Amino acid sequence: MVAEDVVLGVDIGGTNTAMGIVGRSGTLIAETSIPTEAQKPAAVFFDRFHTQVETLLAPFRHTHNLIGIGLGAPNANYYKGTIERPPNLSWEFVDVVGTLKQWYTIPIVLTNDANAAALGEMLFGAAKGMKDFIEITLGTGVGSGIVANGEMIYGHDGFAGEIGHTIVDHNGRTCGCGRRGCLETYTSANGIRRTVDELVRTTATPSELRKIAFDDLTSKQIYEAARRGDALALQAFEVTGKYLGMALADSVAYTSPEAIILFGGLALAGDFIFTPTKHYMEEYMMNIFKNKVRLLPSALPQGKAAILGAAALIWNELL
Amino acid sequence: MVAEDVVLGVDIGGTNTAMGIVGRSGTLIAETSIPTEAQKPAAVFFDRFHTQVETLLAPFRHTHNLIGIGLGAPNANYYKGTIERPPNLSWEFVDVVGTLKQWYTIPIVLTNDANAAALGEMLFGAAKGMKDFIEITLGTGVGSGIVANGEMIYGHDGFAGEIGHTIVDHNGRTCGCGRRGCLETYTSANGIRRTVDELVRTTATPSELRKIAFDDLTSKQIYEAARRGDALALQAFEVTGKYLGMALADSVAYTSPEAIILFGGLALAGDFIFTPTKHYMEEYMMNIFKNKVRLLPSALPQGKAAILGAAALIWNELL
Repeated sequence: MVAEDVVLGVDIGGTNTAMGIVGRSGTLIAETSIPTEAQKPAAVFFDRFHTQVETLLAPFRHTHNLIGIGLGAPNANYYKGTIERPPNLSWEFVDVVGTLKQWYTIPIVLTNDANAAALGEMLFGAAKGMKDFIEITLGTGVGSGIVANGEMIYGHDGFAGEIGHTIVDHNGRTCGCGRRGCLETYTSANGIRRTVDELVRTTATPSELRKIAFDDLTSKQIYEAARRGDALALQAFEVTGKYLGMALADSVAYTSPEAIILFGGLALAGDFIFTPTKHYMEEYMMNIFKNKVRLLPSALPQGKAAILGAAALIWNELL
Repeated sequence: MVAEDVVLGVDIGGTNTAMGIVGRSGTLIAETSIPTEAQKPAAVFFDRFHTQVETLLAPFRHTHNLIGIGLGAPNANYYKGTIERPPNLSWEFVDVVGTLKQWYTIPIVLTNDANAAALGEMLFGAAKGMKDFIEITLGTGVGSGIVANGEMIYGHDGFAGEIGHTIVDHNGRTCGCGRRGCLETYTSANGIRRTVDELVRTTATPSELRKIAFDDLTSKQIYEAARRGDALALQAFEVTGKYLGMALADSVAYTSPEAIILFGGLALAGDFIFTPTKHYMEEYMMNIFKNKVRLLPSALPQGKAAILGAAALIWNELL
């Protein structure tokens, strides 16, 4: 019997690190996870990680052939294989690829979560067969992965694709990055919460959300209120879609993609976010690009996307 | 004797069409030009063009070997080889590559002026050896050519790289493209004229430019006034550099280039434009990108850049 070639896809997150064995066509053969415990030194994490990988791989030694490892992590540098001051991990600077190379001699590649999601989409999801597209991840932060000519754009330093930190309003909201008016401050999970808060304070629109304190408010509650027809929640999605659409109109002027794919929590709000985003994207778009660019939801299976993205990263290198 | 391989570089402009025979290292061996006469049908132009090319090539028949033709033109579509509703030509839709193929069986490639300038910069100019850079052309309009992973980004439809039409102020100046606040309305030759006009009307800053009617004002006069220390002219460059710097900070977040190269009339103003642009680009840039990106003037020889860019386009395809 010929052993099936597989890769290991790993998503290093602030709370948990998920990993899975993934086949060429995106089949998730087995998966597991460990707590990241990022308050402890990185060396402690990697020892536990190594043990867990070996345990995961053990049953497949004779039937499957591990040919590469792909990792997604915040603030990851593709060229150096390092994580540099990640926002939700207390590690300063970690040589991820270098550390793993002491145990594995197969190719190992690291990139940030949004780039991994984009590659996952290209190999296994909504961007299959596309050569020019943009993946936008709408989560705690707003990330992006830009693919042009069939290749991920990493840029000169490995940090390209920060559309979430392009500025949509120079006098706008303060951002975690230290500047003002970044797209992320309007279209992240926290961004829509801030929009609801603004609407509560500046409009008379009735809403069930008026009874929830800002710190208790979740984007899920906003979505559920919108489903019940709550006028203010609907308005918040409209505002969010307007900022996102405006930014995406600019994105199109940069790389003229075939499609823009929305991924992550806010993208699950369906028409509530897609309808205004599409509307304003077309409204603010330059004439030559109008009605050409598809706005699509991610087609990666929920909960598996991070592992599949990391697996796609290494498959993409190997193929 | 072995004939030297050369290409023909052609720049189709609103007034004149320039062409030259260009060697592998960017040597311009011979050049000529004809009036475009774009008010007459395109077929008339191409017949004259063909005659002129043959005249230009005749003396080199035995010593040089023409292996390709590259053309730069406004609103050119790289994939289709067509020009579509160019702003300064009365032609509706012209199949440039198709037309030339009746006479030449060698590879023929067409792209827009800014992409050609970027490729010229990559092969013969300030971006030699770079894989990730952005060329910004500051002329009558503002164009751009984006190179990532060593490849020009043409996008899905061939029209990528319209940074001049990303929006820097949604309530801003009306643009020729029908929208408001495009970068072009602030940083083109006309953009800085509009800025001077605004400063004349809204400030008390003394200036020799106050005596010149808007229709008579040229960007060259603004530059000369700045050289004489004219406070309002200097302020106009500061404003222009601020808008350009803000936009370029966003550009860096997209593709994280090694350098951004400024090309065209306004770029010739040297420190007057480079100093404020660099200052605001760094000020508005995301932390991880700060002090990494070089802002450089074009190193293509003035007056030859369009021909060399078009020649670089075809050399880049052939190599």
